[in-house]
Amino acid sequence: PEKDGLIHGLSVAELQTLCEKCVKAKATAYCPYSLFRVGASLLLHPSSSNGASPHVVTGANVENASYPVGTCAERVAMGNAVVSGHKLGSFKAVGVATDMDDFCSPCGMCRQFLREFLELHVPIFMFTKEGKFIVRTMGELLPLSFGPDKLPPRE
Amino acid sequence: PEKDGLIHGLSVAELQTLCEKCVKAKATAYCPYSLFRVGASLLLHPSSSNGASPHVVTGANVENASYPVGTCAERVAMGNAVVSGHKLGSFKAVGVATDMDDFCSPCGMCRQFLREFLELHVPIFMFTKEGKFIVRTMGELLPLSFGPDKLPPRE
Amino acid sequence: PEKDGLIHGLSVAELQTLCEKCVKAKATAYCPYSLFRVGASLLLHPSSSNGASPHVVTGANVENASYPVGTCAERVAMGNAVVSGHKLGSFKAVGVATDMDDFCSPCGMCRQFLREFLELHVPIFMFTKEGKFIVRTMGELLPLSFGPDKLPPRE
Amino acid sequence: PEKDGLIHGLSVAELQTLCEKCVKAKATAYCPYSLFRVGASLLLHPSSSNGASPHVVTGANVENASYPVGTCAERVAMGNAVVSGHKLGSFKAVGVATDMDDFCSPCGMCRQFLREFLELHVPIFMFTKEGKFIVRTMGELLPLSFGPDKLPPRE
Ligand SMILES: [Zn+2]
Ligand SMILES: [Zn+2]
Ligand SMILES: [Zn+2]
Ligand SMILES: [Zn+2]
Repeated sequence: PEKDGLIHGLSVAELQTLCEKCVKAKATAYCPYSLFRVGASLLLHPSSSNGASPHVVTGANVENASYPVGTCAERVAMGNAVVSGHKLGSFKAVGVATDMDDFCSPCGMCRQFLREFLELHVPIFMFTKEGKFIVRTMGELLPLSFGPDKLPPRE
Repeated sequence: PEKDGLIHGLSVAELQTLCEKCVKAKATAYCPYSLFRVGASLLLHPSSSNGASPHVVTGANVENASYPVGTCAERVAMGNAVVSGHKLGSFKAVGVATDMDDFCSPCGMCRQFLREFLELHVPIFMFTKEGKFIVRTMGELLPLSFGPDKLPPRE
Repeated sequence: PEKDGLIHGLSVAELQTLCEKCVKAKATAYCPYSLFRVGASLLLHPSSSNGASPHVVTGANVENASYPVGTCAERVAMGNAVVSGHKLGSFKAVGVATDMDDFCSPCGMCRQFLREFLELHVPIFMFTKEGKFIVRTMGELLPLSFGPDKLPPRE
Repeated sequence: PEKDGLIHGLSVAELQTLCEKCVKAKATAYCPYSLFRVGASLLLHPSSSNGASPHVVTGANVENASYPVGTCAERVAMGNAVVSGHKLGSFKAVGVATDMDDFCSPCGMCRQFLREFLELHVPIFMFTKEGKFIVRTMGELLPLSFGPDKLPPRE
């Protein structure tokens, strides 16, 4: 889906920034148990980034001796973004990078976490070690998702 | 996909059992925080069920005062099944029931948990309060999934 | 604390059953990622076990390719117990077994999960590979705990 | 434990900053499901904070429609700190604030997450709505903890 010189809505510069940032974030991973480094980057809409040139929030996986207690790159990045004031409507794209030759997608838990803050059309770019990518929208990665609209409202 | 009188590979009796069991399991939920009851049922292949007529393992959501520490119906059911000796190849179908008028799908975390033990073609039936259902395969609910094959093997 | 021939309130037969059951449960672990097997056993009060001789519910760890999505032995056991109808007041003791020479305690996440259903005086026995044990109460393992009483009630 | 004019090793100014920062972070919580706001602050040792006057990393809880997928203030703060380069030895104290009249402690999952990066003597200050506090060390909140030293090393 290339249109008007954009790739899934991103300019070439934005896509390159998204890629560079998640690759760089990968180096900050704490993963002594899996040795599987992951970096994630969240591209903000210009209106959400206070005018700065492509603004990106990043994260990496942070593991724990009790494996289920650790967290993934995508959730560290999005947690950071949300407490920094960003929210549904703020995000233009997501990038994920690993050390694999093949494309790696966010785990189901991260898809669910991201779903709370990403519109269904937001593209998620998965980069290989070589910088190649595949892309899927939030809605494609978590079809029929269980989102905020499914829970009875709290009074 | 009805074929040879089967619905996604299940006989009418199996589908009815799957539905009844997850509806019944729903009543065992511990959910004082969300008040959102969910029941799950896992239909075993005859060969995995020791000859008993349609064998099903069930679960319900078990919440916690610290919300992130609670767990979902699907994971209680599958955890129970796995420590009972069932594994990849043992499962024929999954059922999920809630009190909603609309269909409710497993959350992303549960899709990821199930993925470890379900083949991609296994159907997941989502039942409404009225007993109507929609069905999607494991592969459809978690496309491009991050599964056991993605991790470097442990020596 | 031995009193009236009881060890933390358990008879020798009960303690032996508790130990045997968590050691046996350990063999059912699915842990290809950590290779760290854990078994857990929950001893029910006679009144909660329908008159059967020492009734115990067990579990083992069930891991996932996405490490944070996996679950621990203690939570599998307690999830199973709760959906089987047991609740706060049903449990007399907990046992945990690993393959370590040293004592291994439940992780913090499991302490929190257990806290919802265990009274603070309930003893948790941690067994080594050799069958030696140390014991701490729920309250000792999670002091100043954040429990159900801390959350504003849901209307 | 007041000594040399320090409160658990903190100067009055540091303690005040720690308190202000977690109270302020609380306002950034995303908690439409629990309506229970929590803020967390991590005070860095001067050597870890690049010379800046009391350097603090903060976080707040970020919930999800699927409750178990959400995360707590303490983990958002620590995840952010770790990917920013801080690690075991970098942290001098932790602060936690809620809207409760009573003191609220970190949940067991957060105690486990923090344990990976905090020395056992690090103080954790729990502030009430009124700014009063109680304090416990990491080791006191998670006795007999299951930490990095318990897992067989990965080759
Ligand atoms: Zn993930
Ligand atoms: Zn779920
Ligand atoms: Zn645990
Ligand atoms: Zn917590």
